[in-house]
Amino acid sequence: MSTTTLLYAQSGGPTAVINATAAAVIGRAQARGARIIGARNGVLGIETEDLVELGTLDRDQLRVLAQTPGSALGACRVKLPKPEADPARFQRLFEVLRAHQVDAVLYNGGNDSADTALKLASAAQTFAPQLRAIAVPKTIDNDLVETDTCPGFGSVAKYVATSTLEATLDVRAMARTSTKVFVLEVMGRHAGWIAAAGGLVERLHGLPVLVLFPEAPFEAARFLAAVASRVERHGYCSVVVSEGLRGSDGRFLSEAGTSDAFGHAQLGGVGPYIAALVARELKFKTHSAVADYLQRAARHLASNTDYALAQRVGRAAVDYALRGLTSVMPCIRRSDSQSFGITPVALEKIANRERKLPRSFLRADGFGISKAGEQYLKPLIAGQARLRHVDGLPEVYTDDFKPLRRLCG
Amino acid sequence: MSTTTLLYAQSGGPTAVINATAAAVIGRAQARGARIIGARNGVLGIETEDLVELGTLDRDQLRVLAQTPGSALGACRVKLPKPEADPARFQRLFEVLRAHQVDAVLYNGGNDSADTALKLASAAQTFAPQLRAIAVPKTIDNDLVETDTCPGFGSVAKYVATSTLEATLDVRAMARTSTKVFVLEVMGRHAGWIAAAGGLVERLHGLPVLVLFPEAPFEAARFLAAVASRVERHGYCSVVVSEGLRGSDGRFLSEAGTSDAFGHAQLGGVGPYIAALVARELKFKTHSAVADYLQRAARHLASNTDYALAQRVGRAAVDYALRGLTSVMPCIRRSDSQSFGITPVALEKIANRERKLPRSFLRADGFGISKAGEQYLKPLIAGQARLRHVDGLPEVYTDDFKPLRRLCG
Repeated sequence: MSTTTLLYAQSGGPTAVINATAAAVIGRAQARGARIIGARNGVLGIETEDLVELGTLDRDQLRVLAQTPGSALGACRVKLPKPEADPARFQRLFEVLRAHQVDAVLYNGGNDSADTALKLASAAQTFAPQLRAIAVPKTIDNDLVETDTCPGFGSVAKYVATSTLEATLDVRAMARTSTKVFVLEVMGRHAGWIAAAGGLVERLHGLPVLVLFPEAPFEAARFLAAVASRVERHGYCSVVVSEGLRGSDGRFLSEAGTSDAFGHAQLGGVGPYIAALVARELKFKTHSAVADYLQRAARHLASNTDYALAQRVGRAAVDYALRGLTSVMPCIRRSDSQSFGITPVALEKIANRERKLPRSFLRADGFGISKAGEQYLKPLIAGQARLRHVDGLPEVYTDDFKPLRRLCG
Repeated sequence: MSTTTLLYAQSGGPTAVINATAAAVIGRAQARGARIIGARNGVLGIETEDLVELGTLDRDQLRVLAQTPGSALGACRVKLPKPEADPARFQRLFEVLRAHQVDAVLYNGGNDSADTALKLASAAQTFAPQLRAIAVPKTIDNDLVETDTCPGFGSVAKYVATSTLEATLDVRAMARTSTKVFVLEVMGRHAGWIAAAGGLVERLHGLPVLVLFPEAPFEAARFLAAVASRVERHGYCSVVVSEGLRGSDGRFLSEAGTSDAFGHAQLGGVGPYIAALVARELKFKTHSAVADYLQRAARHLASNTDYALAQRVGRAAVDYALRGLTSVMPCIRRSDSQSFGITPVALEKIANRERKLPRSFLRADGFGISKAGEQYLKPLIAGQARLRHVDGLPEVYTDDFKPLRRLCG
């Protein structure tokens, strides 16, 4: 039997643990005697034949890679057309894959990546019937269906909960003579999964934290009343606001609310907007932070549960490919509050669907999470993924990978 | 000999490790048989007789307190007048101190707090000749003179360096098809100590990071050229900008540059301003984060060097008080790159002076730090202060302290 060749690529926004998946894919392929190569910048690396050797990484390099944030192979934001809409493009992709004798593509990403893997699997029936395509889940947005969670989400949830807890203790200390309201803007354009993590602080520590979800149209008067009552009772409060918060007109508040001096809409500006609103209407001194990339790159704060799941989906994807499965994704199933299983699910059931935050996870007033929300989130932020440091900073993998010789024109 | 009574209070912005100082003060006072009480919200707690018992905290409570961010006793932003300008106010302060038989005040804070301690020590000559006042250093701004560093700074430096490293790996991954420039806004209204920590990432990892210091008036064209050259060479770059960045007219860029939809100047908005400038002029997609309170509250990322120094100044302050010293502050002296000593320095030499970032710590082009800057910063971010977790979140002290019975009107 000839050696199986696996090609691994990363797509979409990075997470704190996507390279843990990469290291697990490489390590498992090595252990199972498969050849493992990579494409730079996702599907673009296949199209442009920008391929690298991965099988030569040694144990220590894999250890460092596994604790490095970002996407070490480079990511891309590319949505492939339907194979029938642009057959030449797919022909090129399969020309490169065939030239490098690739038997299976492992495509690590979120919703668009599941779609890419599905299109590759489907086009393979025409262009390369033996070729398998497997999606490997990764997204801080936690919006893939059929899986209990998406690797990357548990770590961003841990970042948001920890940062909210810490900053809330800070504003508590300042409230007597200075800042009374602290606002943290977090990611989540379409769903409040990430913002929900801020709600853990009120549930677990009883500190006053209001959450503004994109699922609930913003009602300024009701929100301001909620802030005022928290400040009256506790002297201070925090607000965790999703960048995807919308007004009753359906527009993002970040677009409607603020603009820079040149009149451009300032995206990602909903945190400062909410802080300014509170300051103006309630006359409280406010502070606001915008976590942006810090939240998804915070490997120093990765959840060990999330880290372990990121590795497990990587290993499972290799096993599926070697078993001959195609057009599937390893999905995470929660057996009880402590343990998770991994099972293959057909990509047709996953791609281009979106998992919403269940209404039952929100508290009745919409400004926090319910017991059910807490029970969902708590296991995902459990444990601290281990991390080695050099000179007081996390040790990270910044080497380049060895390029493969080009075989196509 | 009767028991000595020490009063401890916290003032100014919190740090990740100010409560490590608090726990060390309490633990040392207990060990030396002194009575230790606290004032809530700094000097305000003395004025309003809002005092609490601290000596009853047990070993486990002190352990948790030492790893809690914020200022557990509550802080204040209050600048005392000169004693001769408002003798009634000082009379009241000393009335309360005498009623509770306080022998020494340990005042934990930054520049304004050193001034408060100095005024208390000087007014004591009139109102209570036996009473000692000792300042205990704490400030993320690192701007106290006579001390090598200020507890709190090493941890915020570690936060900024770690976050910059992580986010730079993120933007590196995205650069091919999306974001090319990431901007992180950090604190430091008057000096670039905190921003300088971002420069460690370029020095230690060779990743492209530009730093914008408040010490150098902002020159847009020169900055944009530096960004463009980094992006041309690396494909991406990060920018760490101090909130105190000023234009050549001396005005804060955060005031000049952006305003919200209501025309109010948006303070702390220099990060988004720089990001918008790069996007408009260079046509690169940008992202920006504003760390705000997260940076100074990030106990989960505290430097062990900083944590240990925070404890040492607390213990030294107790020892000084018991030795009868007054009007001093325990200052940190660096003997070599690894070890630090603590020595008392007269408050007259400290209060109302400001330590500037030495020009020699900056790189010639002003966009990064020099070898001297690196050598100063590296030991301060060394080591990870230990931290226990509960339910995946840091364990924190949120109990209230036991109030003391009021003895004054």
